[in-house]
Amino acid sequence: VGKSTFSALLAQGLAADEAKQVALLDIDICGPSIPKMMGLEGEQVHQSGSGWSPVYVEENLGVMSVGFLLSSPDDAVIWRGPKKNGLIKQFLRDVDWGEIDYLIVDTPPGTSDEHLSIVQYLSATRIDGAVIITTPQEVSLQDVRKEINFCHKVKLPIIGVVENMSGFVCPKCKNESQIFPPTTGGAEKMCQNLNVSLLGKVPLDPQIGKSCDKGQSFLSEAPESPATSSYRNIIHRIQEYCDQHHFHEEKII
Amino acid sequence: VGKSTFSALLAQGLAADEAKQVALLDIDICGPSIPKMMGLEGEQVHQSGSGWSPVYVEENLGVMSVGFLLSSPDDAVIWRGPKKNGLIKQFLRDVDWGEIDYLIVDTPPGTSDEHLSIVQYLSATRIDGAVIITTPQEVSLQDVRKEINFCHKVKLPIIGVVENMSGFVCPKCKNESQIFPPTTGGAEKMCQNLNVSLLGKVPLDPQIGKSCDKGQSFLSEAPESPATSSYRNIIHRIQEYCDQHHFHEEKII
Repeated sequence: VGKSTFSALLAQGLAADEAKQVALLDIDICGPSIPKMMGLEGEQVHQSGSGWSPVYVEENLGVMSVGFLLSSPDDAVIWRGPKKNGLIKQFLRDVDWGEIDYLIVDTPPGTSDEHLSIVQYLSATRIDGAVIITTPQEVSLQDVRKEINFCHKVKLPIIGVVENMSGFVCPKCKNESQIFPPTTGGAEKMCQNLNVSLLGKVPLDPQIGKSCDKGQSFLSEAPESPATSSYRNIIHRIQEYCDQHHFHEEKII
Repeated sequence: VGKSTFSALLAQGLAADEAKQVALLDIDICGPSIPKMMGLEGEQVHQSGSGWSPVYVEENLGVMSVGFLLSSPDDAVIWRGPKKNGLIKQFLRDVDWGEIDYLIVDTPPGTSDEHLSIVQYLSATRIDGAVIITTPQEVSLQDVRKEINFCHKVKLPIIGVVENMSGFVCPKCKNESQIFPPTTGGAEKMCQNLNVSLLGKVPLDPQIGKSCDKGQSFLSEAPESPATSSYRNIIHRIQEYCDQHHFHEEKII
């Protein structure tokens, strides 16, 4: 449904502000797609005196993924939970992230080892919250309700929900089709029912997939596309949420 | 990318032959979508003298999923690997499947606990093989190469690859768009390179998502659609593969 695509774009969008230091951590151990999407395939992690160095896309955007530790991008990481958890711990403890303003964590689907471990390992840092990605289809919303349930159970705040693949405008006749139809009212109705923010809806645009495959930022490749303006709004809302959240914390302390 | 959708349709397609007994096992413990897709939401598993009874869609099509064990479809199963593996073992050992001709197993994405466990627990039964689902995009093919690598490592035969979401025909102007564009040649080129069968390509059709959400079989809801004829061809090829494989085994024994 586009979790990694959104994580990559969120990182690129936040790093557009050169005053902010952004880190993108890919904990999808068995299906890491962040290196390809960020144009970093074939990069290796370097060991420095202070630990593993992230791979930098820009001076203010560092990335870490198991993809950088494999000898070939087709290699499968055939690991059960405990080994995956061990690597996630290493990513947090042994990587020299430096001073960062944002840490974006891209997770695999589900509510299992990776999700429990990252929340547990970061519990001391007060995570700002989770952004949840869905398509308009009920089968996808059903997974999202489980993820919201997960967030409640582990006391992880929810920044909001992004509805991805919200409609497709035919490039020839401009007719809009619902390719993943919202048979139960889509993310909008679900968010109302569950009292969660809907951060925005992003239309399907074939250029998004092309940019991902080429490791380019869709936001700068297609600055005029309706999908880009939707992404930019969503990123802006996430920034605002985090700013308020930090301000709040400072007040509390 | 449509793994569960394909599993559901494959089960329905194989069960169209009333002489065959079909079982569909959903081992996506944290994201079970099979109950909804098969129109079985709210069904419960019954305990009989000989174990758990599957939920039957038709007399010759039984289904098992963690979804039948939850009190609400929004409940999250927040389990690490070992608990998931335990349930998969129970599904194989404690469910009274009866005499079956086909057992279809729907897995979550990845190459981790669920995948290792199912292969291990079924190792004595000689699994016919794996069907791998992808979209035309390189980011999806990259995951598939890892899954193929997984199959080789655990000595699981590969029946073939299905390319899903292969193109979208605008209902208004009939123009075809590649919504998930095959920037590196799609599944076709990958299958050639890796010497794996391409079972077929299925176009995007909004009716597929609608049927899934409603728990109806797309094959009978839209019998004339190009996607249906593509699915039927693929199902036929899988049947043929299994027939030959069984024949082969009988010869070997």
